[in-house]
Amino acid sequence: MHNTTSAPAWKRKIHEIIYEADTPAGKWFDVILLVLIVISLILVMLESIPGLGEKYAIPFITAEWIVTIFFTIEYILRVISINKPTKYIFSFYGIIDFLSTIPLYLTFFFGGFSALLAVRSLRLLRVFRILKVTRYIGEADKLSKAIKSSGPKIAVFLFAVMVVSIIFGTLMYLVEGPEHGFDSIPKSIYWCIVTLTTVGFGDIAPETPLGQFLATLIMIMGYGIIAVPTGIVSAEYAQDLKSKSDNLGSESPNYRHVNTQVCQNCLAKKHQDAAQFCHKCGYPLHD
Amino acid sequence: MHNTTSAPAWKRKIHEIIYEADTPAGKWFDVILLVLIVISLILVMLESIPGLGEKYAIPFITAEWIVTIFFTIEYILRVISINKPTKYIFSFYGIIDFLSTIPLYLTFFFGGFSALLAVRSLRLLRVFRILKVTRYIGEADKLSKAIKSSGPKIAVFLFAVMVVSIIFGTLMYLVEGPEHGFDSIPKSIYWCIVTLTTVGFGDIAPETPLGQFLATLIMIMGYGIIAVPTGIVSAEYAQDLKSKSDNLGSESPNYRHVNTQVCQNCLAKKHQDAAQFCHKCGYPLHD
Amino acid sequence: MHNTTSAPAWKRKIHEIIYEADTPAGKWFDVILLVLIVISLILVMLESIPGLGEKYAIPFITAEWIVTIFFTIEYILRVISINKPTKYIFSFYGIIDFLSTIPLYLTFFFGGFSALLAVRSLRLLRVFRILKVTRYIGEADKLSKAIKSSGPKIAVFLFAVMVVSIIFGTLMYLVEGPEHGFDSIPKSIYWCIVTLTTVGFGDIAPETPLGQFLATLIMIMGYGIIAVPTGIVSAEYAQDLKSKSDNLGSESPNYRHVNTQVCQNCLAKKHQDAAQFCHKCGYPLHD
Amino acid sequence: MHNTTSAPAWKRKIHEIIYEADTPAGKWFDVILLVLIVISLILVMLESIPGLGEKYAIPFITAEWIVTIFFTIEYILRVISINKPTKYIFSFYGIIDFLSTIPLYLTFFFGGFSALLAVRSLRLLRVFRILKVTRYIGEADKLSKAIKSSGPKIAVFLFAVMVVSIIFGTLMYLVEGPEHGFDSIPKSIYWCIVTLTTVGFGDIAPETPLGQFLATLIMIMGYGIIAVPTGIVSAEYAQDLKSKSDNLGSESPNYRHVNTQVCQNCLAKKHQDAAQFCHKCGYPLHD
Repeated sequence: MHNTTSAPAWKRKIHEIIYEADTPAGKWFDVILLVLIVISLILVMLESIPGLGEKYAIPFITAEWIVTIFFTIEYILRVISINKPTKYIFSFYGIIDFLSTIPLYLTFFFGGFSALLAVRSLRLLRVFRILKVTRYIGEADKLSKAIKSSGPKIAVFLFAVMVVSIIFGTLMYLVEGPEHGFDSIPKSIYWCIVTLTTVGFGDIAPETPLGQFLATLIMIMGYGIIAVPTGIVSAEYAQDLKSKSDNLGSESPNYRHVNTQVCQNCLAKKHQDAAQFCHKCGYPLHD
Repeated sequence: MHNTTSAPAWKRKIHEIIYEADTPAGKWFDVILLVLIVISLILVMLESIPGLGEKYAIPFITAEWIVTIFFTIEYILRVISINKPTKYIFSFYGIIDFLSTIPLYLTFFFGGFSALLAVRSLRLLRVFRILKVTRYIGEADKLSKAIKSSGPKIAVFLFAVMVVSIIFGTLMYLVEGPEHGFDSIPKSIYWCIVTLTTVGFGDIAPETPLGQFLATLIMIMGYGIIAVPTGIVSAEYAQDLKSKSDNLGSESPNYRHVNTQVCQNCLAKKHQDAAQFCHKCGYPLHD
Repeated sequence: MHNTTSAPAWKRKIHEIIYEADTPAGKWFDVILLVLIVISLILVMLESIPGLGEKYAIPFITAEWIVTIFFTIEYILRVISINKPTKYIFSFYGIIDFLSTIPLYLTFFFGGFSALLAVRSLRLLRVFRILKVTRYIGEADKLSKAIKSSGPKIAVFLFAVMVVSIIFGTLMYLVEGPEHGFDSIPKSIYWCIVTLTTVGFGDIAPETPLGQFLATLIMIMGYGIIAVPTGIVSAEYAQDLKSKSDNLGSESPNYRHVNTQVCQNCLAKKHQDAAQFCHKCGYPLHD
Repeated sequence: MHNTTSAPAWKRKIHEIIYEADTPAGKWFDVILLVLIVISLILVMLESIPGLGEKYAIPFITAEWIVTIFFTIEYILRVISINKPTKYIFSFYGIIDFLSTIPLYLTFFFGGFSALLAVRSLRLLRVFRILKVTRYIGEADKLSKAIKSSGPKIAVFLFAVMVVSIIFGTLMYLVEGPEHGFDSIPKSIYWCIVTLTTVGFGDIAPETPLGQFLATLIMIMGYGIIAVPTGIVSAEYAQDLKSKSDNLGSESPNYRHVNTQVCQNCLAKKHQDAAQFCHKCGYPLHD
């Protein structure tokens, strides 16, 4: 059984280049992919600038096609180089890869004006592709752990923010009313959050003395409330930093999974450096 | 005496369902109540959107009546299921329950245009009902304790903010004057708090060079001042976290009152898990 | 010498009432004074509201005269009840007391339109009078000490803010120019501080793509910079809190000067509770 | 070899005055230079105020010439007083010194209207000159170290901010569209950063209910995110403060390089107080 599941050499090679980053070819592939993602992002942005999209239609469409064809090849290689393609196709990144490649083909075959507009909206998903980059940045993990550990407190805090917004939003609606821009309770709540978070667009602003007094209360509340999440994260992080400095002698847990080995069979990650077989399905790993 | 005060079985059952949450029926009741409160809140909000209230008058009024009737039944059950109804009726939540139920009946019997408008304002109080939810979230307690412990420092800080606002508000009124939107000293103080809290609506903005220079001072001050409450809460919370980690062996004090037992006689809460009688009035508790 | 300097009984009595707060009469005096200051502040504010000042001219002027006469009597009593009046007259509060009392007399005797306007500006100083209140709040001391101890770091930080503002202010002036509201370099610097402190009035906003890109840089910088003073104050405060909890057994230094004894001869404060003579001039103190 | 490289006395004297600050003459030189830089900065600012530049053309041009001539002399002295002038000329401050001196000469010799405007833009670089001041403020070093030590975490955080901005910026562009001011994706991203950093100019503001709901999400996210860098800097700083207080007995590392000795040969700095020869090139130092 073990012998048959082992894929042919070319498949293994492609898998190593596309899914992993511990060979020169794998690293180059990732860099090229990253550059192309950034270019395609910039293309989408530039195309959206009024006048620019129409003026440089030919270069835009050409660049778009080059990027799309590269993404298509990449997608196909990803599918054929693993043993269980469906595992990739229906994974989070599999779906994003598909959705960020397909729009141009759709416009080409079923094109037309209204379809084109819909496609532009699908292009947005290509933005998510850049999120993959975070896979290669180990530090992000640390940060997200700090946020997660103080998650429940932040949730309670957000709940408090919501309650305050609903109460004061309704109050402001009653006090200021539609004639001063507070058209409805939802809009008043929107204004209340804008104020509580100290953003303060000023598209809506209280005009009656009572409304301005209430706004003052909301702002000072927001001013005080902003201290809470900051204090929490700060304290949690300090605690984390302290416990780390207390265990300086022991092995640091943050550098355990620096290799980018990915099982060719089940896409499992985080293999130990000396691992020879996948810790999930027992399939052999290749350095 | 003890035998006679013990309520009949049906009354005990209702009390358990409505006031407590440690039986399946009690939990279901709370969930349904919460859903209804949220629905009624959304109804009030949607009705306030211009055009929507008039367009869907029939569904709105129907939904409103369903919610109100449920609230009415709940209110009556709450009153009859405890031994001393007045204790509930004049409690904080008793009054809120009453005020969030009565408006529709008032409109129905004494209706008319002006009354309807007044009723809409009373409906706001239904918003407070959702505050009950906090009763079931234990974490909020921790947070509010952290805020309370640094209360006096925050009070002094708020006093400082007020003094700065009054002084700079008056200064800005004298410098900018009514011709640049600083109509009166109270309005100038409002502007000053808007600026000091870094909200910055921009509905009023200094236009003279001197006014802009003063505004700059206020902003940098606000920038520096924002550090104070954050620092305080952060330090207090870190202290709290540290003292907790020092006492890891001992029993955590935050999970003492996880049961939702409520005395049927005097509505006292926070009974110990093994308690058989109310610690306030000696009335027997039922699991 | 010692016998002759001791003031007559009535003078001592007045001194005790006006300058100190450890007798019932002294406390009442302070409360009444505080109420009058607040009332006079509210009067100044209300008078500034357009329309209100003219409409209720008689009650305003009456209330103003009552407050002014009380302040006058208080000022005279303060002067005559101490041995060296000049010490009081030329002290910070002495000057403020004088300036917050004199305006109405000036208007009365040398009145007229332009003088009246100037007087309104002098009235502002009455606002400072409320600052006296801080004398009686011990907590403020703690806070101001925390700010002071991290003073030099905050100064460096403010210097950095200034340098960033000047550089980016000049850049924005060159990029956006007078046609988009960036009239001059000082105004651009004002805008830059408005942005860096995350206030964001929106009275001036970049309109060119390059200007908006620079604004983005400034904002993210401000976002990062806001962390610095907060972190500093937070850490300093935590340090303070820790060292205090380490010395729990020893006498707390924050409650040493709770008495309000003031030397009748030289106005020296902070006498020990058991002190019988002024620690500065040796003049006898009276409980 | 050693004897010949030692510069003549007058050259050594000038070097000491201009490059160092440990002689009275050297200190005076620095103070005068600082004052002149500030004056020239104020001149540039005042000239930019509409109307002022034309009205006081003569005093402005005179002051400008005085400052420029002083800067020219200083530049020449700097060049001739060191052994390897090219080392200074192509250093960072050498280039800034040159660029902040040359504009007026260019206008004078090749003047004209369009050239004048270009020169005004070059003048901006004179602003950077004031950055030199930071050399003399030791505290800044401490602060920048604290920021640097938490650099990688802040970088990850900024990357997260960028990803959020791109995703929500694109979403807002699709939801709100050009008809509500969200003209293009770059402009939407600009708006998103304005909102996320809680600046909130209000030059662009969502107008559709869905757009306002998304804006609410962005703001609450920004509100939570602001906690991260603050928490990090705060914790790092607290750690630093703690380790410092743990080593109170040992020599403080922050006061090592208080002397301003600069090697006349290679411009190397940070010599030990007792050093007699440059630690980089072996050239003799003069006290």
